[in-house]
Amino acid sequence: MSHNLLKGKRGVIFGALNDMSIAWKVAEKAVEEGAIITLSNTPMAIRMGEVDALGKKLNAQIIPADATNVEDLENVFKQSVEILGGKIDFVLHSIGMSPNVRKKRTYDDLDYGMLEKTLDISAVSFHKMLQVAKKQDAIAECGSVVALSYVAAQRTFFGYNDMADAKSLLESIARSFGYIYGREKGVRINTISQSPTPTTAGSGVKGMDNLLDFSNKMSPLGNASAKECADYCITLFSDLTRKVTMQNLFHDGGFSSMGMSLRAMNQYSKGLEEYTDESGNIIYG
Amino acid sequence: MSHNLLKGKRGVIFGALNDMSIAWKVAEKAVEEGAIITLSNTPMAIRMGEVDALGKKLNAQIIPADATNVEDLENVFKQSVEILGGKIDFVLHSIGMSPNVRKKRTYDDLDYGMLEKTLDISAVSFHKMLQVAKKQDAIAECGSVVALSYVAAQRTFFGYNDMADAKSLLESIARSFGYIYGREKGVRINTISQSPTPTTAGSGVKGMDNLLDFSNKMSPLGNASAKECADYCITLFSDLTRKVTMQNLFHDGGFSSMGMSLRAMNQYSKGLEEYTDESGNIIYG
Amino acid sequence: MSHNLLKGKRGVIFGALNDMSIAWKVAEKAVEEGAIITLSNTPMAIRMGEVDALGKKLNAQIIPADATNVEDLENVFKQSVEILGGKIDFVLHSIGMSPNVRKKRTYDDLDYGMLEKTLDISAVSFHKMLQVAKKQDAIAECGSVVALSYVAAQRTFFGYNDMADAKSLLESIARSFGYIYGREKGVRINTISQSPTPTTAGSGVKGMDNLLDFSNKMSPLGNASAKECADYCITLFSDLTRKVTMQNLFHDGGFSSMGMSLRAMNQYSKGLEEYTDESGNIIYG
Amino acid sequence: MSHNLLKGKRGVIFGALNDMSIAWKVAEKAVEEGAIITLSNTPMAIRMGEVDALGKKLNAQIIPADATNVEDLENVFKQSVEILGGKIDFVLHSIGMSPNVRKKRTYDDLDYGMLEKTLDISAVSFHKMLQVAKKQDAIAECGSVVALSYVAAQRTFFGYNDMADAKSLLESIARSFGYIYGREKGVRINTISQSPTPTTAGSGVKGMDNLLDFSNKMSPLGNASAKECADYCITLFSDLTRKVTMQNLFHDGGFSSMGMSLRAMNQYSKGLEEYTDESGNIIYG
Repeated sequence: MSHNLLKGKRGVIFGALNDMSIAWKVAEKAVEEGAIITLSNTPMAIRMGEVDALGKKLNAQIIPADATNVEDLENVFKQSVEILGGKIDFVLHSIGMSPNVRKKRTYDDLDYGMLEKTLDISAVSFHKMLQVAKKQDAIAECGSVVALSYVAAQRTFFGYNDMADAKSLLESIARSFGYIYGREKGVRINTISQSPTPTTAGSGVKGMDNLLDFSNKMSPLGNASAKECADYCITLFSDLTRKVTMQNLFHDGGFSSMGMSLRAMNQYSKGLEEYTDESGNIIYG
Repeated sequence: MSHNLLKGKRGVIFGALNDMSIAWKVAEKAVEEGAIITLSNTPMAIRMGEVDALGKKLNAQIIPADATNVEDLENVFKQSVEILGGKIDFVLHSIGMSPNVRKKRTYDDLDYGMLEKTLDISAVSFHKMLQVAKKQDAIAECGSVVALSYVAAQRTFFGYNDMADAKSLLESIARSFGYIYGREKGVRINTISQSPTPTTAGSGVKGMDNLLDFSNKMSPLGNASAKECADYCITLFSDLTRKVTMQNLFHDGGFSSMGMSLRAMNQYSKGLEEYTDESGNIIYG
Repeated sequence: MSHNLLKGKRGVIFGALNDMSIAWKVAEKAVEEGAIITLSNTPMAIRMGEVDALGKKLNAQIIPADATNVEDLENVFKQSVEILGGKIDFVLHSIGMSPNVRKKRTYDDLDYGMLEKTLDISAVSFHKMLQVAKKQDAIAECGSVVALSYVAAQRTFFGYNDMADAKSLLESIARSFGYIYGREKGVRINTISQSPTPTTAGSGVKGMDNLLDFSNKMSPLGNASAKECADYCITLFSDLTRKVTMQNLFHDGGFSSMGMSLRAMNQYSKGLEEYTDESGNIIYG
Repeated sequence: MSHNLLKGKRGVIFGALNDMSIAWKVAEKAVEEGAIITLSNTPMAIRMGEVDALGKKLNAQIIPADATNVEDLENVFKQSVEILGGKIDFVLHSIGMSPNVRKKRTYDDLDYGMLEKTLDISAVSFHKMLQVAKKQDAIAECGSVVALSYVAAQRTFFGYNDMADAKSLLESIARSFGYIYGREKGVRINTISQSPTPTTAGSGVKGMDNLLDFSNKMSPLGNASAKECADYCITLFSDLTRKVTMQNLFHDGGFSSMGMSLRAMNQYSKGLEEYTDESGNIIYG
């Protein structure tokens, strides 16, 4: 059911690959809520993924771009404004990749050329996007920009490697640019720190299944899905959140505020018995 | 314009006094978005305020209650379920008062009976509300509960006194109960940390005008108004935020993520000249 | 080996019960580092514990006091100044107790009289201590006050119950009073958020063994012991940390900054195999 | 007065330039506390600064190195171990520089080559240092590593520009590597978030005087000096803090926990009159 929350709004969605992608779900939901959009991803992702199908389905033009390339980004915003017939109201940055993770370099054996790429692709690309948009004055007054992050920006998860540092950098860029773009154009910039999500990108992380299980059992509401993340993005793109900016917003079923849940401890300790009273009732809240 | 975001939902709003109240704006907006609601406040507030008028306008019944009194709260939820014809989907807690502030007791000369009252009225009342609701099973699956907080829970503001401690306690209760209510009923519990807002309650704090000015100049988007806060509440009551829980969400135009803005420093240093270059252009981002 | 870090300093230590107590270790270490001290605990704790033995060993006078009783606290500070021959340089607050936990009331079935006691004993007592000390001008310029906290103030641990809320309140009081006492007397006030520690108090929490194990495996340096906590307290009482105030300082082997460690996940998933490569080497950092 | 806190310890100090440098004060204090050290800085800094004089005074050898160059760092650690006669017990990273700030590029007009340099010099150099040290197994068990940061990593300060992002990245690296180095060698890694300090590096930031004044008036204990920062570093290098790791520790006179102080508001509002009662007494705590 549509609420027409984005009626008449124009958006640019970076990072949709296939129907497991959060960006894919955001694109679908944004259009359902009345927006018109363009899609962008790397030429290779467009070739390998199913973005074309999404574009057709949503009547959205696809603009190939390497998000680390300023000229490509200039083209995305310039074209998007033309195609959509006006300034952009919302932008989604859902881009992240670590060559070190791919090449199984551990965090104490990083390749620094690769680290530079991790940071450039996963974080600096967000700055480039914002700087290009601001120079073109491509984002409408009171527009909304969201990038996807993960709680590894605050707490260390084994195996997440240099992506943790990239996410910290990403969230800092959201704050730093949020100040500038906010004071000058009323544009708000936030990050959503999403539950681990079984996307194609996420599946690169080994041991992902166990982490998903732990995260799910720790979170009182369970892990948030890609579809639910899309719902949340819509609220941030809508006019109902015009004073929320420079925030990192956890969309994670409560994980970030948990130290230990009964469900996770049960799995951890392989037995609930000690948390029950004589009658077998769970006795701890 | 209504988006019917709360169509068919039932809500209970605590704390509306007059049209400056955030709770008042939330009540109006919730009804506009399709909800049916009941209103609650203390008998004295009802006598002194304009809640009756609001009730009539919104076709909402008013249930007097002292929110520190468990029996009164039991009555509010019992009656609300009856009046609204089903379990409650959302609750707003907008209640806070410090006798120490009213009596001008400084923080190093607190009256401990008064401190107990500050905590009971401004924080423990939230626990009582949740415990009563849970015992009655009065809140629907996936319901949403919001309490209003302030950044003084994290950072000290002179003169905010024991209300800062009450807000810290309030935010902790949101987390603690959010875990329990989430895992058992899917109910989410969050606090919104709102800009200082010129309400009747807020006006008790002396020097409020200067604080409002500082806060406004620090925030890239300026202070958030009561009306904008109501908009934000609606998103949290809606089905679009079902995996957001145990969070303290800043709705403050960016204040919480600012260390120092150019505008505030200009006022602070009474002169912009040193932030301009030879041609008088502002040179720092 | 003593470094004479507290040479000539006078301290008051609240909460030593037996040689498992953190306060006990702090008292020993403080005297070892050259301080002279008084000890305080409730009359019952003094009867039941081994505080007398500690007092003799450390040549420290014991002043019985109910820390929720302002008159008792007035007596502690008045006597301590007399006994020690001058103003107090450092104070330790290591006091916490929840009747709800003791009576196995779950968090959604709290007794509110008991909750009031939890908050009064575990948090408000800290304010009373500070207010009494300040009114008597009993703490020397640049003195240092520390209270012990736990990460449950920020994140929910099942079973920790209303103690989580008490710790949040405690940390807020440290900030609020830290501002006042800092600006007027240069006195610094901090909380140490300590690893779960197998003390007599801690052992009231059921399932404590599993939590200790989880916490230990999550923390890269393992859980911090009571003795190590005492070491850390000494640094905060010393003149080397004169500009640290209003902080909550994690002394936890890294737990607070961890999302998931390899060791804990191994226990959680009952098998390391998926984190090893073909040759059995751990492949993730 | 020395407490011999670092007796027998070996340290490497990066970043001492002249007697305003925090690293300079740390070097002096570390030697005073019984350590033997080496000093490192860039060849240019060594030529332009007064490091030679410091080396002579402290009997510390100077090893030139570009901290972004892995080979240079390998040489620093290899030589330091040889010169000092054993593994390193503590390391200080006090390195930061932004070409964008120097060239007055605003944050919405960054040069991306320069941003890469900012990140490499100010943050990635810390990873390189740690990776090199770990590969050489140059740091002793339970060693301690500290890097200097600033609250701009969490909150935006106008004009701090891309250094804010670099500090966020730096703090993330401390956490990420702190996990690895902690679990494998017991080495702890922390950042100190220091008050703005009038060093040669800091003086590059225009409007610095006003920021220092604001920061000082906001902080109940006033700004922390370079000398006081050195004192604090010593506690972190000592054996008294062996379970503190992966933390960002504010050493700032309380600034980070302040929202607004009376002193700062007085300056902001140019008049204290409204915070006094009829008798002219300040009435708010």
